[in-house]
Amino acid sequence: MPTQAASKVLVGAEDLRALVSGIFAARGVHQADADAVADALVWANLRGIDSHGVSRVPRYLELFDKGESAPSAQPTVERPRAAIAIVDAHAAPGPVAMNRAVAEAMSGARECGIGWASVRGTVHTGAIGYYTSQAADAGMAAVGVVAGMPTMGYAGARGAAVATSPLSVAVPAGRHETVLLDMATAVMALGRIALLKAAGAELPPGVAATREGDPTTDPALAAVPLPVGGPKGAGMSLVFEMLASGLASNPIVPGYHAGTKEGRRHRQNAFILAVDVSAFGDPREFTSTVDDTIDAIKALPPADGVAEVLIPGERGHRCELERLASGIPLGPKVWRELTEAASSLGVPQFRTVQAKVSD
Amino acid sequence: MPTQAASKVLVGAEDLRALVSGIFAARGVHQADADAVADALVWANLRGIDSHGVSRVPRYLELFDKGESAPSAQPTVERPRAAIAIVDAHAAPGPVAMNRAVAEAMSGARECGIGWASVRGTVHTGAIGYYTSQAADAGMAAVGVVAGMPTMGYAGARGAAVATSPLSVAVPAGRHETVLLDMATAVMALGRIALLKAAGAELPPGVAATREGDPTTDPALAAVPLPVGGPKGAGMSLVFEMLASGLASNPIVPGYHAGTKEGRRHRQNAFILAVDVSAFGDPREFTSTVDDTIDAIKALPPADGVAEVLIPGERGHRCELERLASGIPLGPKVWRELTEAASSLGVPQFRTVQAKVSD
Repeated sequence: MPTQAASKVLVGAEDLRALVSGIFAARGVHQADADAVADALVWANLRGIDSHGVSRVPRYLELFDKGESAPSAQPTVERPRAAIAIVDAHAAPGPVAMNRAVAEAMSGARECGIGWASVRGTVHTGAIGYYTSQAADAGMAAVGVVAGMPTMGYAGARGAAVATSPLSVAVPAGRHETVLLDMATAVMALGRIALLKAAGAELPPGVAATREGDPTTDPALAAVPLPVGGPKGAGMSLVFEMLASGLASNPIVPGYHAGTKEGRRHRQNAFILAVDVSAFGDPREFTSTVDDTIDAIKALPPADGVAEVLIPGERGHRCELERLASGIPLGPKVWRELTEAASSLGVPQFRTVQAKVSD
Repeated sequence: MPTQAASKVLVGAEDLRALVSGIFAARGVHQADADAVADALVWANLRGIDSHGVSRVPRYLELFDKGESAPSAQPTVERPRAAIAIVDAHAAPGPVAMNRAVAEAMSGARECGIGWASVRGTVHTGAIGYYTSQAADAGMAAVGVVAGMPTMGYAGARGAAVATSPLSVAVPAGRHETVLLDMATAVMALGRIALLKAAGAELPPGVAATREGDPTTDPALAAVPLPVGGPKGAGMSLVFEMLASGLASNPIVPGYHAGTKEGRRHRQNAFILAVDVSAFGDPREFTSTVDDTIDAIKALPPADGVAEVLIPGERGHRCELERLASGIPLGPKVWRELTEAASSLGVPQFRTVQAKVSD
């Protein structure tokens, strides 16, 4: 029989949402916002992006405790021109501000063909594909970018310089599922490096540097993820910071490197661009083109050792179907932290389907 | 004394523009459009992007000869909603259609805060940073993407699958030069692989595959450039094709892989997004934030063997200053092709400053 420490629990998505929403509501987040945060985090787990899922709950609670995030804050919106909105999060949790940004960007797009929403001063936004895929569900294409605290290297420099600023692009399809690109500008996301670290596995070369900025494959020394394609990933992250933080009048990089307490305070900015496909022509022609493009790529001969050529988002969609059916596997640490938080906050009992699964 | 074949000529930017414009005008391109094409190509040479400069002139002439590009075509514009325009190039040369797209995107941005222009059915657009930097010169930020013929690999598949679709982002600065990211979604651009091929130098691993799709470092066998970051570069290229070609109702990937003659005909689509920085707040605050961000990055300790931390576009700007002062170095083959084309088309004589420079 495997030891308890090595086993995972399987929790149904509905149950997990109820648990997480209960924790946030008990901590002072309005019920609708608590539901929104829970849905965004559980979505990441369903899609297999466990590093951006419910494992982040303790971090949100810590940000509330420190006053770096405001549980009951309500975003305010300015719309200086017809196609653009500026959503001030007032330190509300990421999903609360980002959901509003998606709605505002889509509203601009319905009127003007495209719409943009900048987000100022939120915290942890979770998996950004959650937001762009909302637009795709409504038949729009969307681009999303988040700028956060510098943790990644910059080509030619030592140490943490810029954020691993993710880029997500969602494109609605017809017969096929939404094409959903969701990528960090680092070679390997911090969460994956942490997993390899935990396993004591050697890192591939070019993935990480030490705290001092020297390249390393030793997981124990890896501290700074490196940008994908050197100057390409570094350059993307830099211009994403300039656009996401600059247009939101809330720069992160200069203050961070000045090293002041305010400059080091956790915060994120973002933008969402929505494109109303139906403004350009018949939307069925567009989704049919997307379907044909997917078919052409999937029909290519696979590389050695590859069973099937995959489209961005396809693996996540399959994971979602599987986890909706069988439950979401959570590691014992994550599960313990969630249940302890729920217990200490007096969150009402919830049903769970638990089963040991192999690690 | 070096042999003629190994030496380059130095040509002044003005002289080179006049020569190239003369060639295009003699081939039936309206004078203003010929000037526009010449300016776009010479800009690439000035910035050190020689693979996208005047070396492409013979290729344009070939496209005219084959009827794949129309020298005197005039783009037409639809504006279905306030912030979006669709520029139909009618096979006009890239710079003619792309300049119009930049103007349309900026016009939408002035009215709505952001503006988008899709480009349908042009040919060779040159260096896309030329277009986004026009918006930055006018105080706007801009994003540009081009979708073209599949030449690049796709993660998990064999052979050429998608285009090396470039992404450019231009951000206006204050004290500093425009931040100008201009990158292919391939690890290494085709032009650079060709240079290493010509030099017989071994390629770094992960840069290219053979025609059959096997990884290679042998420059003689390298036929298919590989996407940067595997699924990241491949995914970006795929969604760029869907947005650039799909919104322009001119898909490239499905027809290319169907292998029909029409499907294999050279063509490009694109989009330009312009962001009116002044709609979000005081534009001086924005450019001051960009300056501070640049200063923070440039003040980071450089990596071993690196003299200076560089910002996207900085190297190109320095090259431009140098080549404006000393002339643009052209290889003997490029120079011979240009002068032969000028001679056969009866382009009037032009002054040139020529000097041998070492290769």
